[in-house]
Amino acid sequence: MALNIVIMAAGKGTRMRSNLPKVLHKLAGRPLLRHVMDSAAQLSPDRTVVITGHGAPLVEAAVAADGASCVRQEPQLGTGHAVQQAVPALGSEPGTTLILNGDVPLIAPATARALAHACGGERLALLTVTLADATGYGRIVRDGESVQAIVEHKDATEAQRQIREVYTGMMAAPTEALKRWVAALKNENAQREYYLTDIVAMAVAEGVPVVTASAVDETEVLGVNSPVQLADLERRLQRRQADALMETGVRLADPARFDLRGTLACGADVDIDVNCVFEGTVTLGEGVRVGANCVVRNAVIGDGAQIHPFTHIDGDKEGVRVGPGSLIGPFARLRPGATLGREVHIGNFVEVKNSTLADGAKANHLAYLGDATVGERVNFGAGSITANYDGANKHRTVIEADVHVGSNCVLIAPVTIGAGGTIGGGSTVSKTTPAGALTVARAKQVSIAGWTRPAKIKK
Amino acid sequence: MALNIVIMAAGKGTRMRSNLPKVLHKLAGRPLLRHVMDSAAQLSPDRTVVITGHGAPLVEAAVAADGASCVRQEPQLGTGHAVQQAVPALGSEPGTTLILNGDVPLIAPATARALAHACGGERLALLTVTLADATGYGRIVRDGESVQAIVEHKDATEAQRQIREVYTGMMAAPTEALKRWVAALKNENAQREYYLTDIVAMAVAEGVPVVTASAVDETEVLGVNSPVQLADLERRLQRRQADALMETGVRLADPARFDLRGTLACGADVDIDVNCVFEGTVTLGEGVRVGANCVVRNAVIGDGAQIHPFTHIDGDKEGVRVGPGSLIGPFARLRPGATLGREVHIGNFVEVKNSTLADGAKANHLAYLGDATVGERVNFGAGSITANYDGANKHRTVIEADVHVGSNCVLIAPVTIGAGGTIGGGSTVSKTTPAGALTVARAKQVSIAGWTRPAKIKK
Amino acid sequence: MALNIVIMAAGKGTRMRSNLPKVLHKLAGRPLLRHVMDSAAQLSPDRTVVITGHGAPLVEAAVAADGASCVRQEPQLGTGHAVQQAVPALGSEPGTTLILNGDVPLIAPATARALAHACGGERLALLTVTLADATGYGRIVRDGESVQAIVEHKDATEAQRQIREVYTGMMAAPTEALKRWVAALKNENAQREYYLTDIVAMAVAEGVPVVTASAVDETEVLGVNSPVQLADLERRLQRRQADALMETGVRLADPARFDLRGTLACGADVDIDVNCVFEGTVTLGEGVRVGANCVVRNAVIGDGAQIHPFTHIDGDKEGVRVGPGSLIGPFARLRPGATLGREVHIGNFVEVKNSTLADGAKANHLAYLGDATVGERVNFGAGSITANYDGANKHRTVIEADVHVGSNCVLIAPVTIGAGGTIGGGSTVSKTTPAGALTVARAKQVSIAGWTRPAKIKK
Repeated sequence: MALNIVIMAAGKGTRMRSNLPKVLHKLAGRPLLRHVMDSAAQLSPDRTVVITGHGAPLVEAAVAADGASCVRQEPQLGTGHAVQQAVPALGSEPGTTLILNGDVPLIAPATARALAHACGGERLALLTVTLADATGYGRIVRDGESVQAIVEHKDATEAQRQIREVYTGMMAAPTEALKRWVAALKNENAQREYYLTDIVAMAVAEGVPVVTASAVDETEVLGVNSPVQLADLERRLQRRQADALMETGVRLADPARFDLRGTLACGADVDIDVNCVFEGTVTLGEGVRVGANCVVRNAVIGDGAQIHPFTHIDGDKEGVRVGPGSLIGPFARLRPGATLGREVHIGNFVEVKNSTLADGAKANHLAYLGDATVGERVNFGAGSITANYDGANKHRTVIEADVHVGSNCVLIAPVTIGAGGTIGGGSTVSKTTPAGALTVARAKQVSIAGWTRPAKIKK
Repeated sequence: MALNIVIMAAGKGTRMRSNLPKVLHKLAGRPLLRHVMDSAAQLSPDRTVVITGHGAPLVEAAVAADGASCVRQEPQLGTGHAVQQAVPALGSEPGTTLILNGDVPLIAPATARALAHACGGERLALLTVTLADATGYGRIVRDGESVQAIVEHKDATEAQRQIREVYTGMMAAPTEALKRWVAALKNENAQREYYLTDIVAMAVAEGVPVVTASAVDETEVLGVNSPVQLADLERRLQRRQADALMETGVRLADPARFDLRGTLACGADVDIDVNCVFEGTVTLGEGVRVGANCVVRNAVIGDGAQIHPFTHIDGDKEGVRVGPGSLIGPFARLRPGATLGREVHIGNFVEVKNSTLADGAKANHLAYLGDATVGERVNFGAGSITANYDGANKHRTVIEADVHVGSNCVLIAPVTIGAGGTIGGGSTVSKTTPAGALTVARAKQVSIAGWTRPAKIKK
Repeated sequence: MALNIVIMAAGKGTRMRSNLPKVLHKLAGRPLLRHVMDSAAQLSPDRTVVITGHGAPLVEAAVAADGASCVRQEPQLGTGHAVQQAVPALGSEPGTTLILNGDVPLIAPATARALAHACGGERLALLTVTLADATGYGRIVRDGESVQAIVEHKDATEAQRQIREVYTGMMAAPTEALKRWVAALKNENAQREYYLTDIVAMAVAEGVPVVTASAVDETEVLGVNSPVQLADLERRLQRRQADALMETGVRLADPARFDLRGTLACGADVDIDVNCVFEGTVTLGEGVRVGANCVVRNAVIGDGAQIHPFTHIDGDKEGVRVGPGSLIGPFARLRPGATLGREVHIGNFVEVKNSTLADGAKANHLAYLGDATVGERVNFGAGSITANYDGANKHRTVIEADVHVGSNCVLIAPVTIGAGGTIGGGSTVSKTTPAGALTVARAKQVSIAGWTRPAKIKK
């Protein structure tokens, strides 16, 4: 039996008030549709069909790499009409077709699997959830166990309005029957739309059992229709992620001020202070401490490293690596290609880009290391800069082991500072320096007595 | 018929434990009294009378520009006594006098208008609100529709304590009757105070109808008596502002970590990450993205600009303008008079003050641009500085188009760097340089072999 | 009558998933056990006995300075077994033994005192709390006033499950009786453990009155068993601390985004913006304003000083002092030994360490002041650096009053800049300069016409 998954992704999302198609809005850093696609993929479906409409080219581009087929629904004439467009893509094998929504991002794979299983290629299975307050939702009306109808709130009797089990918009149907049913849908209603839920009556009429599967909680069936709902779901997901991390032993100073947009792997005894944001793929080794207000993206932080407050690490595509026992920040910025060895110190107002720093190297104050190879135990002085850009091309600076670069130096690349050398403070070095030597480029200090400082001009 | 608005602003606010008069404490960046004044102004009253007392000079100064008259209540002998002081300022025309509280800042103009309308110059109108738990509040006791009394909690019968409609402290009265009533108030009570609410009994006795208008929600009638209450109201207002922005399509990563103290105008598809603060008047163009932990005040940010995390923008009086497509931060600071063209890049640890940067100019690392005019496509090197201050006066630096300033340079103003010129790294430039030329001011690099680095002194 | 306090601190805390013993995990910057020890100390007990087990050496080291005796429980065979280990340390005097838990950190001294008092050396006193939902907890079953038993949830009848008063794990017992009771405990249960609560039945059987004392609220009896519970308690404590500060008049922009890990003393009219963290011992003078996103540790901030956003102050052991009326930040970092006089200005991207700045001194932009003594009214220019480290030793820089240091200067310590002197921009100064003079160390500016800038290399 074949499993098809249809994902509804044609809606406009008017209330988002955005130029971006609704399903491409991001939740925890990933498009809503991506969440659904990833959950769907865990069911190993035979086919995945994404129904696009508003912003179809953008949506199709977003799923192009997934092997899903896209069908367009144009114009958008309702949920039943959407599924009608998908019919040609569903194949001819008997089996189950599971219908998910591209704007309901947190559906759990286990729930989707249970829904498909409830259908089993034979029954019409509705995903339902029981709400504390069901006002406004379509109620699940049963006769004993079997579902008789989904009754919209406005059409419900007073007794029906007491029902708190509601339809979530997701279902699974026998593929063959689904094709037959959606072909028979009518749009004889005020909106002139084809409603997918009308197939419930068809199933009941045919004697096909209508069964249900239950969502674990409300969160997994919440849809996103507005920025307010998006923000609400973001906080729910963030809290869920925070709880999951804490269950593994990560200590968060405030789970309500923690944001993870990607994947965070942590060793034992990791402490994360308030208001940190993690993006992409981040690994924190055992005993790592991340101070307040850090932003970390695509980085690997070694065991025992300390990231002080106000540190910005962004590895982008090349990544950032921080070695064990290193001390980073506060106010440090590590950019793509920063690769730091053991016990490296990067202090305040220091930027490191596309540079390798060997074990024990230090740049503690107001410095820029770009396109540099820095040896072991090098001390790179306050205010010093690797001038890696000549206005047209980038060049490399090599600072060999045990070099001491003084304050406010400029090393004009390409240049090599020989091992064990010292560069005097305030020097601009444009030629390679010998190992072990003191190199200076410094004008003579002259004092002019009796010099009169400018006076304040009255305006 | 004339409309008077009386605003009670004499209270001491003992529980604020502050030297500042209570009504001058700030909510979302504006004094409490200012919120009330601004709401009152929307009713276009004929007269606004502010009753001052504690800290009267400060309070009067704060409203001086508004055309409101101030009357002082000294000493403070109760709410009725306060209104007695206002009587001479109310004019002699028939009409309505609306009484608001300077420490109840979120009263909606529509609610105030409805309250005045309920009075209509003929009835005594009380603003009421229905609370889930009314314990401690004065209950609205009715006979049919008409109000019979406000009964204080301590004086209420068990039946009256079931009433959840309570008096908010705001009312509107026929001006003539109000004058007569407050003149007749007695202070025969434990506190020896004159209570304004005693006029309800007078109205009932005279057969003047006592009616009510209803507050939309509890928030608009909450008073501020302590820092805890002020913080509570701040969060309510901030959440309300966040929701209002999201309704227009602005995406907030966390509405609970968003602060707006002023006005924020946003184009379509604006993303604001966690923990940002906006002050004064800020405009964000279409597609602007503001990263985590930014503080932005009095600035206009052009379409598609990206403000990276940890950016501090403060336009103060002169304002800051950031052109379309610009990239700012992280760790950038834009100060008053920073005016950036299109696609300008301001990077980490860079400060810009009172400077114009033309399209495509860049200052990406550890730099200070003050009192500078920077041409198109200029690259201002890492660690470079415009020395605009000679210890007495500020001077201007002009960097013409297509100049490349190397690293750790000092441009000593007044100075002009000619178009297309290059300044070698580490140069201090105090004289105007020719266009197209390479200018350097650099000492000869000398290496001293056999130099012995200082040894660690044992202590 | 002697008062013993026994603190249970042997538990493993498996759910913490940490290498650190559970009671050493930190809440508001102090270990859980430290909170309990400090509360216990307020009862001036005759003896304090800490029962250690998992990670005993670490725990014992943490309490070594307190004069508490430690006894080890190895292996851990239940709460009754734990108290058995403490018996030899309890002394022979009659009196009260109060049993607290090292992982229940927020027990109020007043509650602990009330519990000891309820015992009075004669009764078995249980600390109880009444919960909205008592599911899972041991219920207090009474006959009239007197307690008959603690009945575990799983053993409770339906009627007993309606009881919402539950046992908190803390008790106080007559010392003599406690010794006798714990010696008689049996481990005839599924876990083969000795349960301390079994002594309730012994007391009842002996006719010793079993009484209760009540916790003020749930928070003071909450235990920590997991990072989720630790984070929950952290937020409760932080909110409690925030409320306490606000009661004294401190204005917090958002009490939910305020963290205090230590002691914060504030003068009148202190404003603290969102997302600030205070650690160690911090004093803020009257009228101090702390901007958004500041981290402040071990510092004294003088009256009227303003700490702008993104400022990092860490006094560590030496402390930081900021004088009255000073302006610090944004993006400033003050390190140990920074001692600033009145109206000192420290601006963006400036680091100050182990330096004294006299009244009116300024370092507004991109600078490093380390091991420096800076006189009154000195202006330390943008990008300038005190080079205090020669690669082996630290040296001192003295800048006398009224000196003007230009931009991007390096002052190579040890060096003294004479009073009233001026250092020209871009100068590296290694020799002491005369007072009142202009000192420069600057290469001649040369322009090379016709120089061709490097061209972009095609790759």
